[in-house]
Amino acid sequence: MKKSALDDLIGQIAKLPGLGPRSARRIVLHMLQKKDDVMPSLAALLLNCAEEIIECVNCHNLDTEKTCGICANDSRDNSILCIVESVGDLWALERNRAFRGLYHVLGGCLDIVKGVTPDKLKIESLMQRLDAATVQEVIIALPSTLEGQTTAFYICDLLKEKGIKISRLAHGIPIGADLDYMDEGTIAHAINTRQSFH
Amino acid sequence: MKKSALDDLIGQIAKLPGLGPRSARRIVLHMLQKKDDVMPSLAALLLNCAEEIIECVNCHNLDTEKTCGICANDSRDNSILCIVESVGDLWALERNRAFRGLYHVLGGCLDIVKGVTPDKLKIESLMQRLDAATVQEVIIALPSTLEGQTTAFYICDLLKEKGIKISRLAHGIPIGADLDYMDEGTIAHAINTRQSFH
Repeated sequence: MKKSALDDLIGQIAKLPGLGPRSARRIVLHMLQKKDDVMPSLAALLLNCAEEIIECVNCHNLDTEKTCGICANDSRDNSILCIVESVGDLWALERNRAFRGLYHVLGGCLDIVKGVTPDKLKIESLMQRLDAATVQEVIIALPSTLEGQTTAFYICDLLKEKGIKISRLAHGIPIGADLDYMDEGTIAHAINTRQSFH
Repeated sequence: MKKSALDDLIGQIAKLPGLGPRSARRIVLHMLQKKDDVMPSLAALLLNCAEEIIECVNCHNLDTEKTCGICANDSRDNSILCIVESVGDLWALERNRAFRGLYHVLGGCLDIVKGVTPDKLKIESLMQRLDAATVQEVIIALPSTLEGQTTAFYICDLLKEKGIKISRLAHGIPIGADLDYMDEGTIAHAINTRQSFH
């Protein structure tokens, strides 16, 4: 059965995160039902993004401009900088609109086993920004994994001499979550850092 | 924040079956990590498929040729024809390699509520194939839904005069399945159509 073009397309889609052969076949069959409509426009969008999307020279966010929309936005508070692991984490914080400062995307966390040393991350450019700019507070929003916490401590060490305030996101019970489903570490932390009822 | 190209791409991917905004963002971020590698090749495959994949004139399968690989294969048994609802069902049967006859893809099932009347399905071309060809048996492999069964009865009625043997796939307990998780209809059917132990 000669259908290599289809097989190739299904194979490539199946490699995307969260998808497999079955979901890839379903997606391809769906697209083929109105192929002249969906497939060329999706192809155009892919080519457009591959060409236009670049990394911001300041914060390493992804945007169509050299300086991303967040860094270029004058109404944002440039005295506070939030350090995140990935662009996905930056987007998650942006969707919330609770934070109006600037970001710095590290591009990963330190991991000796996998060979992720400080020079593989955007730590040098972070230090340059902190030297040059008017940053008074750094919020570390790295994951609570071993690698995330190692990276957080490493950055704290580097920042100590600069006299910049360092904070991190609060841990605790997510709002609306069922205590019964919470892990013990989170519950213990929430009890130890309990807050006065007001 | 000006990132319409990214938003458009995420929006279009989120519309694909089984995906939503969250999985679409994840997929796009994954692709952007090695964008010059993944995105243009995926775009090329999409355009290639949109251009090359056509419906087989005989069985309405999808392939790069006017007569699909199955219809054109001389080693397949052209005396037996399996009627399926969709190309996805055809692919599922083909992956199994248990069936070596030919197929006919109806393109849906009769559904009066949704306005799917016999002329919307590939029933006329099915009749033409049965008139012309050497088909001795038709296997009806349509879903066990109300619409699937209605379509099966409709086709049976049309085939009665032609003196062609009609069969359908056996219902029963899937091999390896847990009885505890089976629906009552399947269990009742499996008991009523029990087979001698040999």
